[in-house]
Amino acid sequence: MSFSVVGKDIKKVDGIAKAKGVARYIGDIEFPGMLYAKILRSPHPHAKVLSVDISEAEKLDGVHAIVTPEHQPKTRYNMAGFPPNAEEFPLIEDQLILTDHPMYVGDPICAVAADTEEIAENACKLIKVEYEILPHVIFAEDAMKEDAPKLREEGNVMFEAPIKFGDIDAAFAESALIVKESYSTQKVYQATIEPTSGCVAMWDDSGKLTVYSPTQMPHLARKIIGTALDMRLGDIRLIKPHVGGGFGARLGLVIEPLTALLAKHAGRPVKLIYTREEAMAFSEHRHPCKMDMELGFTKEGRITGMRFTNIVEGGAYATHTPSIAGIVGPWAFGMYKMQAVDYLGKAVLTNSMYNGAYRGYGNPQASWAIENTMDIAAEKLGIDDLEIRKINGFGDDDIWPWSQLPVESSGLNECIDKGAESIGWHEKRGKKLGTSTKPRGIGMAVSCHVSGAKPGLLEISGAYVKINEDGTANLIIGNADIGQGSTTALAQICAEELGVKFEDIIVETDAVDTNYTLFDIGSHASRQMNSGGNVVAKAAREAKGKMLEEAAVMLDVKAGDLDAKDGIIFVKDNPTKSLTYGEVSFEAHFKPEGTQIFGTSSENPEGNPPVYAAQFAEVEVDTETGVVSVIKFVAAHDTGVVINPLNTTGQIDGGAHHGIGFALTEESVVNPETGLLENRDLANYKILTAMDMPEVVSIAVETPAKTSSHGQKSVGESGLIATAPAISNAVYNAIGVRITDLPITPDKVLAALAKK
Amino acid sequence: MSFSVVGKDIKKVDGIAKAKGVARYIGDIEFPGMLYAKILRSPHPHAKVLSVDISEAEKLDGVHAIVTPEHQPKTRYNMAGFPPNAEEFPLIEDQLILTDHPMYVGDPICAVAADTEEIAENACKLIKVEYEILPHVIFAEDAMKEDAPKLREEGNVMFEAPIKFGDIDAAFAESALIVKESYSTQKVYQATIEPTSGCVAMWDDSGKLTVYSPTQMPHLARKIIGTALDMRLGDIRLIKPHVGGGFGARLGLVIEPLTALLAKHAGRPVKLIYTREEAMAFSEHRHPCKMDMELGFTKEGRITGMRFTNIVEGGAYATHTPSIAGIVGPWAFGMYKMQAVDYLGKAVLTNSMYNGAYRGYGNPQASWAIENTMDIAAEKLGIDDLEIRKINGFGDDDIWPWSQLPVESSGLNECIDKGAESIGWHEKRGKKLGTSTKPRGIGMAVSCHVSGAKPGLLEISGAYVKINEDGTANLIIGNADIGQGSTTALAQICAEELGVKFEDIIVETDAVDTNYTLFDIGSHASRQMNSGGNVVAKAAREAKGKMLEEAAVMLDVKAGDLDAKDGIIFVKDNPTKSLTYGEVSFEAHFKPEGTQIFGTSSENPEGNPPVYAAQFAEVEVDTETGVVSVIKFVAAHDTGVVINPLNTTGQIDGGAHHGIGFALTEESVVNPETGLLENRDLANYKILTAMDMPEVVSIAVETPAKTSSHGQKSVGESGLIATAPAISNAVYNAIGVRITDLPITPDKVLAALAKK
Repeated sequence: MSFSVVGKDIKKVDGIAKAKGVARYIGDIEFPGMLYAKILRSPHPHAKVLSVDISEAEKLDGVHAIVTPEHQPKTRYNMAGFPPNAEEFPLIEDQLILTDHPMYVGDPICAVAADTEEIAENACKLIKVEYEILPHVIFAEDAMKEDAPKLREEGNVMFEAPIKFGDIDAAFAESALIVKESYSTQKVYQATIEPTSGCVAMWDDSGKLTVYSPTQMPHLARKIIGTALDMRLGDIRLIKPHVGGGFGARLGLVIEPLTALLAKHAGRPVKLIYTREEAMAFSEHRHPCKMDMELGFTKEGRITGMRFTNIVEGGAYATHTPSIAGIVGPWAFGMYKMQAVDYLGKAVLTNSMYNGAYRGYGNPQASWAIENTMDIAAEKLGIDDLEIRKINGFGDDDIWPWSQLPVESSGLNECIDKGAESIGWHEKRGKKLGTSTKPRGIGMAVSCHVSGAKPGLLEISGAYVKINEDGTANLIIGNADIGQGSTTALAQICAEELGVKFEDIIVETDAVDTNYTLFDIGSHASRQMNSGGNVVAKAAREAKGKMLEEAAVMLDVKAGDLDAKDGIIFVKDNPTKSLTYGEVSFEAHFKPEGTQIFGTSSENPEGNPPVYAAQFAEVEVDTETGVVSVIKFVAAHDTGVVINPLNTTGQIDGGAHHGIGFALTEESVVNPETGLLENRDLANYKILTAMDMPEVVSIAVETPAKTSSHGQKSVGESGLIATAPAISNAVYNAIGVRITDLPITPDKVLAALAKK
Repeated sequence: MSFSVVGKDIKKVDGIAKAKGVARYIGDIEFPGMLYAKILRSPHPHAKVLSVDISEAEKLDGVHAIVTPEHQPKTRYNMAGFPPNAEEFPLIEDQLILTDHPMYVGDPICAVAADTEEIAENACKLIKVEYEILPHVIFAEDAMKEDAPKLREEGNVMFEAPIKFGDIDAAFAESALIVKESYSTQKVYQATIEPTSGCVAMWDDSGKLTVYSPTQMPHLARKIIGTALDMRLGDIRLIKPHVGGGFGARLGLVIEPLTALLAKHAGRPVKLIYTREEAMAFSEHRHPCKMDMELGFTKEGRITGMRFTNIVEGGAYATHTPSIAGIVGPWAFGMYKMQAVDYLGKAVLTNSMYNGAYRGYGNPQASWAIENTMDIAAEKLGIDDLEIRKINGFGDDDIWPWSQLPVESSGLNECIDKGAESIGWHEKRGKKLGTSTKPRGIGMAVSCHVSGAKPGLLEISGAYVKINEDGTANLIIGNADIGQGSTTALAQICAEELGVKFEDIIVETDAVDTNYTLFDIGSHASRQMNSGGNVVAKAAREAKGKMLEEAAVMLDVKAGDLDAKDGIIFVKDNPTKSLTYGEVSFEAHFKPEGTQIFGTSSENPEGNPPVYAAQFAEVEVDTETGVVSVIKFVAAHDTGVVINPLNTTGQIDGGAHHGIGFALTEESVVNPETGLLENRDLANYKILTAMDMPEVVSIAVETPAKTSSHGQKSVGESGLIATAPAISNAVYNAIGVRITDLPITPDKVLAALAKK
């Protein structure tokens, strides 16, 4: 199929405004009379508040409202963005806006709204809180011990997710090889360029609340705020401004209910913006996992079965942790065919800031375990790494166990082949590369991710396209563009289906307003191109159909004889007989029985096509310092039909950046005594700089999906999933030792080399 | 028909916020970095700008942008809100944003955006403008003289509207009586509680413009701004905040193009707010008209024909003047059946601030002429005032000549009878009332107005209703609520048709946003209940239909067996079998193949039912001072089915206030030398205070329209149309002299009494 707008390198609609610094983010949103908020946090990892005295703080000039646990509804909520039908992963509602029983260092006790942030901060210092200190536990493995201090009466394992199918004992019995290995992944920070969290909240006199929040899920946010504040959804209006990166960190409403509570008490707009330090210490990072994996193989390399246990360190509240505990297993058995699985994920409470969603949502952890294991097995079985993965992959007509929906089209083998060719796999693999003190190696890993959360979670998207009198069109969508460029790509689909130029689509990325937009579950699970793309295409097709009917009357032909391109509606057999979109829309509006032409759609996508990737790394290990350097990185991704190549490459490059950092340098270090994040600034939390990044070759393998509007799948999360194991496998290839405990830091490399 | 929500006294959705002062009007809208603007105006009624020197002004600290005529596009525009299909009244495009050829005292020459209004004002004083003074003319009759200074080369009569039908000579030849009289009406000010004009404009980096404007026509405003600034509509977003009264004064974009031009040059948001003095001097008032009317009658009182000429004083630019010149005639022959008409309206340019739309749009002028004439004729023919009006009225099945559409249902006779009963017509008329120095009299007049502008103007309204997961519904409409409460009434129609409670409809009055709402031609011609009500009802019915289908599956019945009321969907034969709207919408969203339920509509109304009224006044004339006091006022209005009685009564009361002021005290006094408004504050412009108002009895005559969703017609404008002639006829009844030159001031009364 040839497209006019889809597949073109179109710059993000908000790119210039962002590059020039004029785009308005939450920090830029100001209202007359606005107050600024600060939070008084627990200094103790576990304690009981005996008394709160705000009398001195209230007297401070410029203080307008102080809220304490007494001022809040007593309804517990979960700040994560789950729709109510996420039955597989029970939504544990265990949070209050403020607490008199702090569970981690930083748990909010009180908050102040004042004329300035400084006054609010000074007021916090004047609040006197008496605590009874309670015993605490910081790490998941300690929390699971029998004598551990209990965070909840029911115990510290808040949720267990056992998933079994097939006969695992039989599968292992018939295996030629069983690889058994333990893995761990560290806690890591999303490092959004705009720090999370920020919020502006205000109430009108009729009890209606407006919240400005840079969230990934504007519509679901209403539900969370509604539960926390005991309000009906209809009274909550949420507006998403420009957002400087999400990566899952904005799939939880950390401060919105609190800001709204303060605004209610102050009777004025309130703004609460985290500093970078607060954003690092008190936002949700990726869950550290401790995983034990046993993978059985036939001698031909076919996987027989998997036994897999996974301890997920949750922090002090449930939020996403049960869901992560439940999903890591399916990520692993969604990668390869296997006849039997015995998975057990455990979600564990600890006295530290709770962890949450991060790009990949458990898949980087699963991939770390299974893709290292595949490398071990390939060596033991004497099968090429590429081959063992091809043997076990799913075919187009298979039902994908993750979703119980068809695979539709697998680009796995093509990704493997093209990536291998680009990295020079066949020339280099097995050769001694590099020098004796700086040996080099190449390794690879594959991944498989979703194009949405269906059927586990609700997937509704909605779109509404209206044609203005001049032939331009407003595209109105609840899609949360958080910087990934989904709005631009959706506008391309809209232009393509309407048959107009891209610049004729008017769409905003900075004002997703729940009062105007149809329900959209949000930007998670890389779902916007599939779910969002489908509804935009349907709404645009409906509008185009009406335009052609109108034009048919004007041209005295049948609508079926017409088509549109670049804003021109023409007779297919005689393209000189034509009208512009503007001429037809003008007539539609201004004829005696006029109407504005528009199209709408609200629905679930039909499918959830998995997206495959093969990533390859060439690394150099300095055996004297232990430093691992990635020399070259190849990422071959089957993203389905590419809507916007520029954005797609950007996602893959960004994924490599996240993934290489996860592999080598990044770690959120939790103080073992207090549970507080130690490295809570970007000087001490080591994301890669531009200078640290290797060459990244990104390869698009466009295997069209069958169920999406233009064959598109997804790309948002898949960029980083296979990255760490690809590097680990390359390190093993270089030096013959395997670091199973992320990140692969120089000290671990040196220790492993010494042991060898 | 019995309704649940329609017909109920529901308070305006924004009433509390407005009463408490927390509703945000244009003056309350602030953005970071915002600049404030002032205008440098011509001090001469007619001149040529020889040079503009802004060098000193530019140096002033805090000045960010100065625009002069050089900085604007050269496209002339008309600031009035006409759709492009208003062919009967040609749209004369004769304005520029700034002028180097000022045509009235106050014509904008330059404008300044600065950190404060004070700085902007001081900068204006530093701008040096050299003028060549040209001859000028202030009043229409002078401007029509042959030797008058010409404002345009083509002459000062910019438009003539001749309307003829039947044989007027034959009609007059067979008349038993021809009444010939001259009438004049004065220029009057709408006196909105929030002064016109105000605007905030800002540009984004991609060349898109956002304008906050308290306009009556958000969608049409884009066209005017687009023409003035040479932009495409799609690049203009208009947001209407709360508005403190319109009455037609906001059917012209006096300052929006200028504010946008300044913001473009400043590169920052710019706010321009008129003071009350500016708002009075430089906004569009009601056109003064000089009218000569000849009305022929049979001896039985049947009107035979009408000869009618009307000179409309337009001021310096065309705007609404040609339209007013064209429409006064049809208002008159739309009131009564007549076989022949010879009307000629002339639109005349003069060197004063241009006049524009004011509630009634020419009908108060027409009514002043014809309803005084009817009173004269009734006396001469010896026919009761009530009877002569009934004889000449239209029947339900007549085609109404104003619209060429059916009358549908006339409540004229019932209005006359009920009003007469209430005022005590039959007891008092013909009796000597009052004392010798304070004689009393009663008089009456009738009126007929529209429920929209169809077919003269485009009438599209659009509505979009989406049902949230909790069963609340967002009603999204482009209707411009300017304080009249149309949004509240439309939300009642929405609730009625959905079958939910009123409080389940979420709707805003302060954020009509052209990027989100379907095209709506605006709030003029009292059209919102008919045109807006119809689309809201259709969209709500569509959404309800889908809700019933969803519920039918859940309840295992047929959708046709279901109905909804108060948010409960129930089996008609077994109402205990039911589901709430929330339950059904929740299921719709969250079932596997979920969808959000919504309904949409964009269309023209089928009809344009005329609305009738009969108004009665009892007056007391102090023959020593000449002061006329209205003792009692009765307004019987056929508004069709009343959607909101509270709002309807409010409109009738407000109409009486406007109408009595027009009759007795209000006059915009133009300086005969300069053309500048003399009484440009509310101390010197005499609107009636609450203490000045008589008892107003409002009577609803609910004769259902046939073509509107619930039988509703209109009420917005009709309240003031018959008021002045009703009072004039009562004055004649009291003292036997008739003042034909509005307003009926004490000096005119004393002079007339002296003459008598």
